[in-house]
Formats: sequence, structure tokens, C-alpha cells
Amino acid sequence: MAYEFKLQRRVEFSETDAAGIVHFSNFFRYMESAEHAFFRSLGYSVMMRHLDPPLGFPRVHVECDFKAPLRFEDLVEIHLLVREKKAKVLSYLFKFHNLTARPPVEVARGICTVVCVAHGPDGQLTSTRIPREIADRIQEAPAELLA
Amino acid sequence: MAYEFKLQRRVEFSETDAAGIVHFSNFFRYMESAEHAFFRSLGYSVMMRHLDPPLGFPRVHVECDFKAPLRFEDLVEIHLLVREKKAKVLSYLFKFHNLTARPPVEVARGICTVVCVAHGPDGQLTSTRIPREIADRIQEAPAELLA
Amino acid sequence: MAYEFKLQRRVEFSETDAAGIVHFSNFFRYMESAEHAFFRSLGYSVMMRHLDPPLGFPRVHVECDFKAPLRFEDLVEIHLLVREKKAKVLSYLFKFHNLTARPPVEVARGICTVVCVAHGPDGQLTSTRIPREIADRIQEAPAELLA
Amino acid sequence: MAYEFKLQRRVEFSETDAAGIVHFSNFFRYMESAEHAFFRSLGYSVMMRHLDPPLGFPRVHVECDFKAPLRFEDLVEIHLLVREKKAKVLSYLFKFHNLTARPPVEVARGICTVVCVAHGPDGQLTSTRIPREIADRIQEAPAELLA
Repeated sequence: MAYEFKLQRRVEFSETDAAGIVHFSNFFRYMESAEHAFFRSLGYSVMMRHLDPPLGFPRVHVECDFKAPLRFEDLVEIHLLVREKKAKVLSYLFKFHNLTARPPVEVARGICTVVCVAHGPDGQLTSTRIPREIADRIQEAPAELLA
Repeated sequence: MAYEFKLQRRVEFSETDAAGIVHFSNFFRYMESAEHAFFRSLGYSVMMRHLDPPLGFPRVHVECDFKAPLRFEDLVEIHLLVREKKAKVLSYLFKFHNLTARPPVEVARGICTVVCVAHGPDGQLTSTRIPREIADRIQEAPAELLA
Repeated sequence: MAYEFKLQRRVEFSETDAAGIVHFSNFFRYMESAEHAFFRSLGYSVMMRHLDPPLGFPRVHVECDFKAPLRFEDLVEIHLLVREKKAKVLSYLFKFHNLTARPPVEVARGICTVVCVAHGPDGQLTSTRIPREIADRIQEAPAELLA
Repeated sequence: MAYEFKLQRRVEFSETDAAGIVHFSNFFRYMESAEHAFFRSLGYSVMMRHLDPPLGFPRVHVECDFKAPLRFEDLVEIHLLVREKKAKVLSYLFKFHNLTARPPVEVARGICTVVCVAHGPDGQLTSTRIPREIADRIQEAPAELLA
């Protein structure tokens, strides 16, 4: 049973903008990369095309608060925490720390709520229960870690 | 005095992902493009490098709720509404409609809160009052439009 | 019979990088947006999912020479020219001009060569002839325009 | 003296497109990430803002040939080779291999030519010699590796 995952990545030049800092939209890509690595750490992929019907986890709500900028070549830690687990929905909290800063500093905090959907043959998406073998490996993080 | 702005754009292929829909992070790029076009419509740019010190509007909070997917070549309308104006802060509501759908459908709704900052010579950012000539041209939208 | 297409777009903030200029990878996205608009101008989409088998136009070769930078809010014209038309292959030349510069200046020149492929049920791609009704509407540009 | 560098990365979901494969523009971001990691391996950053004047390495020519697609979660190796070293110019060859494929397969090959420039106070860029301590650590790769 897992409730957290940590991923480190170095800021790439193409992720910065003319203000000299990471473009805010890329924090959401960072969140997603941590979410997908979390799934891989459990032995799964978020794209379950081999199932019938194929399953996926589109986002229904995301948000982010920005506290300090990240710059080119900064080393950032993305700390994923499971904040809510329901039959069809998972919600994650993400804490971003700039490990290049001395001392390391929290630069942002985000939330991402995803719903399990089945992909119909006509492209339509229908919400469905998270497969049991996945749900059984995930639990909500202790409240003190979510503060 | 302006409190809203509408921008249309067509979904580009590079904005889609392997699920066949617009990657959710691009909704934040869409919001920003509408915000910048709104500023241009007032006669300003969000990058005020000619001022001393240079001013900018980094994001402090953003969020988005996703209701339906957008696909390649869909025509999307981004409706910006000023939901809050303070001395140093502007907050926008964005309503996204897919105009290609019959009838057009709201696909997402987002919020973006920015703070006016001065760029110091050492790269540090200090929050500061929105220049008066800009603030004087912006007002909060009527409550019924923000519902 | 068409052999060219012009598209204008304004540089977005998310397309810039920490050097204060458009990240070079975005010139390829600009090329693609012009290519797709060219197809739409002929009454087609580059994603022909309604056909059986579905057709697409993946890139086999691309290149770009950079002569001057583009910056945030610059207005750029992308001039597409058909440089080669074969049974299964189309090759385009793209000339980029910064219309905000006084006088307008050519900032880059690119090439994009695409091949028509059929998408097999197992995800495999097989090169195939460009559908006749599309091929019949496209011709190579006069040599003097390609210089 | 170094003439090559290898970097591995896993394809992220945000790098794919609606054709289900990595969007071609991202191969250029992959090239750049390998180039920057190569510089870091030599003890330098490509953004030398601490120098007076600040130096950078904008691209003057890039190209890429695509042989096979990359998909979500594929592990890709980017092999950088120095193909040319001049007083002001460096040119790299990049070979991309999909390590997830069995056996691993070359999926693309790219070239990136950069010029060393000094950033003037007015934003203008002037080509200049590569600093000696960097140039002394880089050499051209043996011809047989560049084939």
C-alpha cells in the first residue's frame, strides 16, 4: 500500500520563459510526470490500452499555488501524496521543493484530481471504478503529511 | 473601463496528447494568451520592460475544472472575466467553450490570480502596486457574469 | 491548384525561453500550424480518421535555419511553399518573417517533408499514396519562389 | 577532452500527440537536454550569465530525420557526438535509440549547430569565440562514430 512518491528532475531550458523562470504551465507537466512514475512504481501504467475497454485517468480538477520561481538547471523535487481515494476518483497533493536553493525551499504546491474512465469505441469517455488490483495498492496519506 | 475579453483559437496538433485530446496543461497557456490579448486590447503589454524598474505579472494561484475534452482543430472561445481587482493583484475567471460542438458546450472553467511585481537588478521580485494608468482601465465584472 | 499559404500569428509568452526569445523548437510547431491551415484551406484535415484505413502525414525530415530571434508579442508571418510533390511525399519550404520589425525581416527558413501513411489496426504505419482528391489540389511552387 | 555524451529519458505523456506518438518538435527538446547535460558533464552551463558580457549558444541550424515513432513511456537514449568544432561554432550529431523496443532500434538522427554569442546590454547578440577553457575540453568525434 503506497501513499506517496518522490521524483527529482532538473529544469530544462525549454521549460523556461522570457521572465527567466519556469513557465507556470510546466508545473502541471511536472505533477503528471510524478503521477505516472508513481503508477509505474506500483507496476502499472496510467494508459491501460490493453484492457477491454481501455482505461485512462483524465484530470477533472487541477490547481497550483506558486511561492517562489524555479530557474534553468535548478534541481526540483516533486513530492506526490495521495490526498483522497474514492471508487472512481484519485486526488493527489504535490509539494515542489527547489533542492538547488540553500537551504532547499518549497516553491509551489499543487493538487490534481483524476477520474478513472473507460474509452468507448466511439471516443466517448465513461467514468468507471478504478480496477481493484490498482486500488488495493493505493491508500490515502496520513493527515499530518497533507498539512 | 474593461472587465472582459473574448479570444478564439483553433486547437493545434502539438497541443493534443496520446489520449487524442488537448493536454490539460495547455488550458493554462490558453488562459494566458487571453490575458495577454486583454492587456493588448487596453494598449499595454504584460511585460513592461521599458519601465524602471521593469514590471511583470507572475501567477500566484491558478486552477481549472475540466468538463469535456477538446480535440484537434476544434474552435475554442476563451472568455476572460475580471473577478477581482486589488492594489497589487488581479484575478481572472476563464470560461472555455467548444464552438465546434453542436450546440457549443462549456468544456472548462479556470481561474488565474496574478500579482504585479518589480524586477530588481539581481533578479529578485517584489510585489508592487499596479500602475495607475492600467488599474484605471480595468474593473471587476458584474457578479452575474461570474456565476 | 494551390502551392502556397500564408499564416500570421503573434508570439505567445509560453513560446519564449530564458534567453528572452522564441525557443527554437517552436518554429517547428509554427511550420506545422501553417501546414494544417494550408490543408484546411483546401477543404481537408491532415488527420483523416474517417477514412478506412485512417491516414496521416508524419514527418520524415525537418530542418530550420535561424537568422534572427523572435520575441514575445512579435507578429510573425509563416509563408508555406510546396517544394516537392511525389506520389506518397510532400515537402514544404517555410519562410518566417517578423512583421513587427521595421522593416520586416526574414528570421528563419525551414523545410518539412511528410509522408502519407495508413494507420493499421495494430498501430503500425504503412506509407501509401496521397489520396487523389488531395493530390489534385496541390502543385509545386514556381522555382523562383523557392530560391 | 570529450566528444560524446549519452542521456536516457522516458517519454512523458505531455510529449505525445493525438497520433499516439512523440510530437516531432520534442526531438529537438531532447537534443537540447543532451547538449546541456554534456556541458554540465564538463563543469559548465550553456547559460554563462556570470561572464561579462554574458554568453549563450543559440542555434543557427537544426535538422532531424525520423525513422520510427516513440511512444508514451518508451525509454529513449540520446547519443550526442561532436561533429564539428570551430572557433565560434559547435555542431552536434544526435542518434536516438528506443531502448524499450526489442531489440533496441534507432528511431531518429538529428543535427544541431550552435554559435557562441555575447549578449549586449541592449539585447543584441554578437558571435564570439568559444571561451578557451570550454573549447579545450571538447574535441570532434572520430569519423567512424559519425557515420
